[in-house]
Amino acid sequence: MPLVRIDISKEASTALVRVIGEAVYDAMTALANVPLNDRFQIVTRHERDELVFPVEGYLGNAYSAEIVFIQVIWVRGRSTEVKKAFYKSIADAIVEKGSMRRQDIFISLVESGREDWSFGNGEMQYAPD
Amino acid sequence: MPLVRIDISKEASTALVRVIGEAVYDAMTALANVPLNDRFQIVTRHERDELVFPVEGYLGNAYSAEIVFIQVIWVRGRSTEVKKAFYKSIADAIVEKGSMRRQDIFISLVESGREDWSFGNGEMQYAPD
Amino acid sequence: MPLVRIDISKEASTALVRVIGEAVYDAMTALANVPLNDRFQIVTRHERDELVFPVEGYLGNAYSAEIVFIQVIWVRGRSTEVKKAFYKSIADAIVEKGSMRRQDIFISLVESGREDWSFGNGEMQYAPD
Repeated sequence: MPLVRIDISKEASTALVRVIGEAVYDAMTALANVPLNDRFQIVTRHERDELVFPVEGYLGNAYSAEIVFIQVIWVRGRSTEVKKAFYKSIADAIVEKGSMRRQDIFISLVESGREDWSFGNGEMQYAPD
Repeated sequence: MPLVRIDISKEASTALVRVIGEAVYDAMTALANVPLNDRFQIVTRHERDELVFPVEGYLGNAYSAEIVFIQVIWVRGRSTEVKKAFYKSIADAIVEKGSMRRQDIFISLVESGREDWSFGNGEMQYAPD
Repeated sequence: MPLVRIDISKEASTALVRVIGEAVYDAMTALANVPLNDRFQIVTRHERDELVFPVEGYLGNAYSAEIVFIQVIWVRGRSTEVKKAFYKSIADAIVEKGSMRRQDIFISLVESGREDWSFGNGEMQYAPD
């Protein structure tokens, strides 16, 4: 069910983008009760001036042009502890496998309901709450 | 009020993209109480490796590189029955008029409030609840 | 915390896009209790047929190909009055500094929780409610 938007520089390598997508999927299935094969991701690449971040940093984080914005839309109900572990797992995997700066990994979650998804075929696959 | 994001391959024809946009708009106005002319849609086209789906399929659906992701942001309050009919209507119209694979139509809904919209002019046009 | 998506024509000038981004950031910090330097924005540029609006207009607004879609994802809790002032401030600044048509400024808000954000480093920086 999660729909993931990954917005990143045009200069990022294909290998890094793949690492990011895998990190998000792996964290979802390992930690956040997302079913296997529930992997739907939209990557959009941007010119340098199209990804805007504060050059002064924010909350102690400093950002570079290699920033990646990860937006996850998924069904509500994950706990704060799960979300904390989810953020950490994504950053750990991207830094380890993609050699990215840890501070450049921005994640935003948006929640919806079980009835807010059609995975194809014009059907509502999930039973509503 | 709905804002619709349509993410699709760069190889999709202009005619197909138009069919998809019309299918979403028609389903909204016919079934989901969306006013006439409330049609705001953002199309983003992607390289093949930028639209990620499970090659193993999910919930019995199999996907191809022709997958389209339709995200609808609209005011909360539509019933489960309306959403079911909405999904079916969109898929029916796209398959009939666009010759697309029915399983490649992915839809995700996100809800907001009546006060969360400005349709131009710097104003909040809808009275809040 | 806010994540802002700005979708606009490929023909819009870099200067105008900068004005729009600054208008949104300035309105957030001045009116909506957003902290200084909390500025994260994603710009996506589109071909003419990728930004769809009703040629008949909607709610008395008429649109042109220079339409800009501004989507703001932020933490819930802003009042209706704040949102009204937010819309007006953005439109005022863009019209004044960017010479844009006031009716072409479309704004959509989406709300999430305090725990739904990681500003980098794999951490949940905001304490949950």
